[in-house]
Amino acid sequence: MNIDMIRAAAKRLDGHARRTPILTSPFLDEIAGRRMFVKAECLQHTGSFKFRGGWSALSALTDNALKAGVIAFSSGNHAQGVALAAKEHGVPAVIVMPSDAPAIKIANTRALGAEVVLYDRANEDRDEIGEHLATERGLTLVKPFDEPEVIAGQGTCGLEIAAEMNALGVTEADVAICCGGGGLTSGIALALAADAPGLRVRPVEPEGFDDVTRSLANGRIERNDRMSGSLCDAIITPQPGDITFPIMRAHCGPGIVVTEEECLQAMAHAFERLKIVVEPGGAAALAAALFHPDTFKGDAVVAVATGGNVDPAVFAQALETL
Amino acid sequence: MNIDMIRAAAKRLDGHARRTPILTSPFLDEIAGRRMFVKAECLQHTGSFKFRGGWSALSALTDNALKAGVIAFSSGNHAQGVALAAKEHGVPAVIVMPSDAPAIKIANTRALGAEVVLYDRANEDRDEIGEHLATERGLTLVKPFDEPEVIAGQGTCGLEIAAEMNALGVTEADVAICCGGGGLTSGIALALAADAPGLRVRPVEPEGFDDVTRSLANGRIERNDRMSGSLCDAIITPQPGDITFPIMRAHCGPGIVVTEEECLQAMAHAFERLKIVVEPGGAAALAAALFHPDTFKGDAVVAVATGGNVDPAVFAQALETL
Repeated sequence: MNIDMIRAAAKRLDGHARRTPILTSPFLDEIAGRRMFVKAECLQHTGSFKFRGGWSALSALTDNALKAGVIAFSSGNHAQGVALAAKEHGVPAVIVMPSDAPAIKIANTRALGAEVVLYDRANEDRDEIGEHLATERGLTLVKPFDEPEVIAGQGTCGLEIAAEMNALGVTEADVAICCGGGGLTSGIALALAADAPGLRVRPVEPEGFDDVTRSLANGRIERNDRMSGSLCDAIITPQPGDITFPIMRAHCGPGIVVTEEECLQAMAHAFERLKIVVEPGGAAALAAALFHPDTFKGDAVVAVATGGNVDPAVFAQALETL
Repeated sequence: MNIDMIRAAAKRLDGHARRTPILTSPFLDEIAGRRMFVKAECLQHTGSFKFRGGWSALSALTDNALKAGVIAFSSGNHAQGVALAAKEHGVPAVIVMPSDAPAIKIANTRALGAEVVLYDRANEDRDEIGEHLATERGLTLVKPFDEPEVIAGQGTCGLEIAAEMNALGVTEADVAICCGGGGLTSGIALALAADAPGLRVRPVEPEGFDDVTRSLANGRIERNDRMSGSLCDAIITPQPGDITFPIMRAHCGPGIVVTEEECLQAMAHAFERLKIVVEPGGAAALAAALFHPDTFKGDAVVAVATGGNVDPAVFAQALETL
């Protein structure tokens, strides 16, 4: 896993993934107490950064493997990213999803042409289900984060952040990233280490699901106690990955923990000031930048708004915080 | 008023206005029955295209006029565009606003450093109030649409649409634009006539406020019967401008009228599929592209999402249409 793989993924993604804008608002700068740059990955195809990893993984397969099709297991955003990438490559996709995933994510994944297989998040092991189906049908498993070509795809987001911050002359800043298993976080960390070494990644997690923060603090992989019960479903994973954790340990600053209420408030600010739709788990980094200013140093902060696939009722709940 | 003024404005806006993305979704393509490209001007600074015209007008002033400051009258988006442009130029701005404008727009304009003067939309003449204040304080009046440098600024949005559609190989399409007084519509029409002559502008208005549609159909300027009572407040104006109407007459196809309900539904689709926040008046063009497919020909349509400054309660109302 290295920067060359990320640069190669960037070439394969060119013309397929969207180069998402970095947005700003003087109102957010005032709350954050410094210049705040928001990388709007919610505007990526399928509404989250996951399309990058999906496209990267599929486009790296051999012709024969690609033709046979792919399988993925995901709380939703990875599912959509892989489904659209498969559709655009003209190959079949099977998606294994938890039965309690937001309705919009299940419906969207099916509408993107994928076959959806549901499982019970509390009592079934998604890895086991995924591997069984993969073997049975000859599908290639595209893991959601602990997979080099997926990390390489997510890392292309970091190349864009590095290029834009360098162009703006912002050479020292923390980059807050909503963190689940660490695919995006480690990919961006590798990209920044190469192209903008003064930018430091800070993983952000919701309260009660802070496996990465604890793992980084203690120097070893730690698990979450539970796997459901958070509005931030998109970034709930059991533990950091075997590939992602060493990268995060080498390159990231300390993790940051935010509350669900702060995520809802951050969604409302993004609605009001940036005109983007962000889901709770995708707003964790915004929440850190806005409501935990003391954890950052310097006069600039970058926050990645990682996804926007949120049910209308939850979004309405966020608007009520205004 | 010509294309050279638009190109000159583009140079002055470079590095100040945002080059907004053109977004797509396979789900919207399916509803529209053709490829649909959404120019997301709601992501412009201050949440609408109006920042372009504001910056263009201020940056075209003589040094002395600029120092004295500017005045503008506006239902809100023009106000914010001029206020931020004045703030960034370091000069005073007075904004004359209707007292029934959305609270967020009044608050934002004040927060951007402008002095806000309120008037009663039903019983007072904003032009008269604006001109009185301008004379009294030596301010330059920046009209919301019937002003060459404002039209030139809005036209820069058209240069971007032309460049991006040309790059995509889309050479024949209608471009639906939410239309009030016609500043954006005429500016984009001039830009497309020069740089993408196969793209034709179609002004879109809300039911009951279709002055441009009737004016184009009858070949002379016609007025609206009333000036309030629409959710689409951003694009409610008495009549097309003396400068904008001849340009629209020369370059635009027939106007399109949409209902408020269609605008709310279009806002909900933009939330769900594009992850952008659009206000009712800013969603009129999306509504036309999505719900009036028979008025368009060909396999592609462009819709400009002109603004996103919407009160949370109205946005929640839009989400309820899903």
